Amino acid sequence: MPAEWVAVDWGTSHLRAWVMQGDQPVQALQSDQGMGRLSPAEFEPALLALIDPYLDPEQRTMVLCCGMVGAAQGWQDAGYRAVPCPPVVAGQAISVAASDTRLDVRILPGVKQAEPADVMRGEETQISGFLADQPEFSGVLCLPGTHSKWVQIADGQVTRFTSFMTGEVFALLAGHSVLRHSVGTADDWDEAQFLAAVGESLKQPEALLGDLFAVRAGMLLHGAGAGQGRAHLSGRLLGQELAGAAAYWREQEVVLIGAMALCQHYQLALAEAGATVRRVVGDALVLAGLTRARHDLTTFIKEG
Amino acid sequence: MPAEWVAVDWGTSHLRAWVMQGDQPVQALQSDQGMGRLSPAEFEPALLALIDPYLDPEQRTMVLCCGMVGAAQGWQDAGYRAVPCPPVVAGQAISVAASDTRLDVRILPGVKQAEPADVMRGEETQISGFLADQPEFSGVLCLPGTHSKWVQIADGQVTRFTSFMTGEVFALLAGHSVLRHSVGTADDWDEAQFLAAVGESLKQPEALLGDLFAVRAGMLLHGAGAGQGRAHLSGRLLGQELAGAAAYWREQEVVLIGAMALCQHYQLALAEAGATVRRVVGDALVLAGLTRARHDLTTFIKEG
Repeated sequence: MPAEWVAVDWGTSHLRAWVMQGDQPVQALQSDQGMGRLSPAEFEPALLALIDPYLDPEQRTMVLCCGMVGAAQGWQDAGYRAVPCPPVVAGQAISVAASDTRLDVRILPGVKQAEPADVMRGEETQISGFLADQPEFSGVLCLPGTHSKWVQIADGQVTRFTSFMTGEVFALLAGHSVLRHSVGTADDWDEAQFLAAVGESLKQPEALLGDLFAVRAGMLLHGAGAGQGRAHLSGRLLGQELAGAAAYWREQEVVLIGAMALCQHYQLALAEAGATVRRVVGDALVLAGLTRARHDLTTFIKEG
Repeated sequence: MPAEWVAVDWGTSHLRAWVMQGDQPVQALQSDQGMGRLSPAEFEPALLALIDPYLDPEQRTMVLCCGMVGAAQGWQDAGYRAVPCPPVVAGQAISVAASDTRLDVRILPGVKQAEPADVMRGEETQISGFLADQPEFSGVLCLPGTHSKWVQIADGQVTRFTSFMTGEVFALLAGHSVLRHSVGTADDWDEAQFLAAVGESLKQPEALLGDLFAVRAGMLLHGAGAGQGRAHLSGRLLGQELAGAAAYWREQEVVLIGAMALCQHYQLALAEAGATVRRVVGDALVLAGLTRARHDLTTFIKEG
C-alpha cells in the first residue's frame, strides 16, 4: 500500500522517514544521508533512495520535512519564524520543486531569536509535538543534543531560548584533543566523578579551560582511569551549560526532551544543581510534531 | 666544522635543533618530525636526518633536548620534577641509549604539580632561559600556546602553575566545529569585537558554551562577518582563560613569554582586564634555557 504521506526528520548527520497512514507510521526508514554531506541537487535522490517504493505512481504524495534540510546550505532555505511564536505554523512550510512528479515536498521553517542571536531547526517540531499532547504547558523545556536548547514556553509560544554547544564540544575534546588519551568509551563511567565535576562547574565556571587540562594531568600523574576522565569531561561541560542556563531552571521545573541516555545525564546533573525535573520525554516527539503539522497543513490547503 | 653540541626543542608537532659552538648557534635546523608522529624507534633517525652532517665522526656530541620527546609516549620518559623546584636541574637529565656512537643524547625532565594536577614539558626550559637573564625575578610568567601556562616564580623556583587548553580549544572550534563557517582566516580581525568578547567572558564566564553558539547564529541572522566571528571566538576563549587565571594576574604584574603575535593578543586582553603587563619576551628563550642547562650539565659531569 502506498504512503498516504511521509514524515521526514532530516538533520545534519541523519535522514529519518516514516511511511504514514493517517497518524500511524507503518514503516520507519533511515539513512546516513544527512544534510551535511549533500549538495542541493543530491537531496531528491537521497530521499527517493529511501521512500521510492512507498510512493503512489498515480498522484503526488506529501513529504513533510523538518530540520537542517531547510537551512541555507540545505535543499532549500525554509527561513525562520521569530520569537515569540508558536513553535510550528504549518502554513508557513515552503514547497520545494522536485523533478519527480510523485513528490509534494514541504519543509517547515526554523525558529530564530534576534537578541541574543539564536536559531533552531528541528527542535521546534519536537516542541510542537510535546505541546500537541500538553497544550496548556507553560514552563521550561530542555532538549539535550549536539547543540542543546533551553526553551521558555508560555501560552503555546516559544518566548525565548538559548543554545549551548556542549555536545559538539564534548565530541571534539573526547575525540580530537589531547584528552582523547584520557577518556574511555561510553561503557566507562564514574557517576561520582561526573557529579563532582558538575558541582565544580557550577561553583567555578571560570576555571573550565584550566580544569580540562587537569583531566589529562590527573591521568598522567595519578593514574586516573579513563572512565573517570570521561565522566569528568562530561560533567564539567554539562555543569558549565547548567551554570549558563541557570535563569531557566533556577525557579522553574524542567521537562527534558530527547534520547533517554542523554536525558538521564541531564537529570542527574540537574538534581545535583538543586533543580526539579518534572518529566523526561523520549525522542519520538519529532514524529508527533510532524503529524500535527500535517493536520494543520491539510486544513490550511483545503481552506486556502 | 662539527657541532660542539646540539640544542634540541622537540615538541608534539615540531623538531627544532641548533648546531652550537659554545653559547652560539651557528646553524638552526627544523623539521615536522614532532613527537606526535613518531614511535620510539623513529626518534633517532628523525634526529639524524637533521643533524648528521654536523656530528664529529671521532667523538660523541652532546645533544641536549627538552619537550615532549621526554614524555611517556616520546623517545624515552624523562620524568618530572615536582614543584616547588627550579625549572631545570640539568643534572637530572636522562641519558638515552642511541645506536649511533656519535650521539650522546640527554633529555631534560618536565615539571609536575600534584594538586591541582598539572604538567609541563618544554616550558620549564623557556622559564629557565628567562631566569638565566633575570635571576632575581619573582612574580608571574604567562606562556601562551596550545596549552598555555601561568606560572608563579619565587626565589628561582616554580612554586605553582596552571595550564589552560585555550589554544587547542580555539583550533578545534575554528577548524572542526559548526563555527568553522563563521570564522575567517587569521587575516580577518576585528579588535573591538575581540576586546568586547574578552570583557563578556570576564563578566559572565558561565555563559561560554551558549555564547559560542551565538557566534554562529549572529552570522546567520545578522550577517556578522568572519573577522568578527574569529575575533569573538578568540576573545571569548582568552577571556575565559583570564577569568580562570585571575589569581595570577589580579595583584601581580605579568611577563609574557612566547610568539609575538600571540603575546600581543594576550597583552591586549590583559589590559582590557585591568592587568599590568610588565614585559613581553619573544620565543628565543628555549635556546637560552638549553644553553644554561648545557653549562650546568658540563659542570655536573666534570664534578660527577
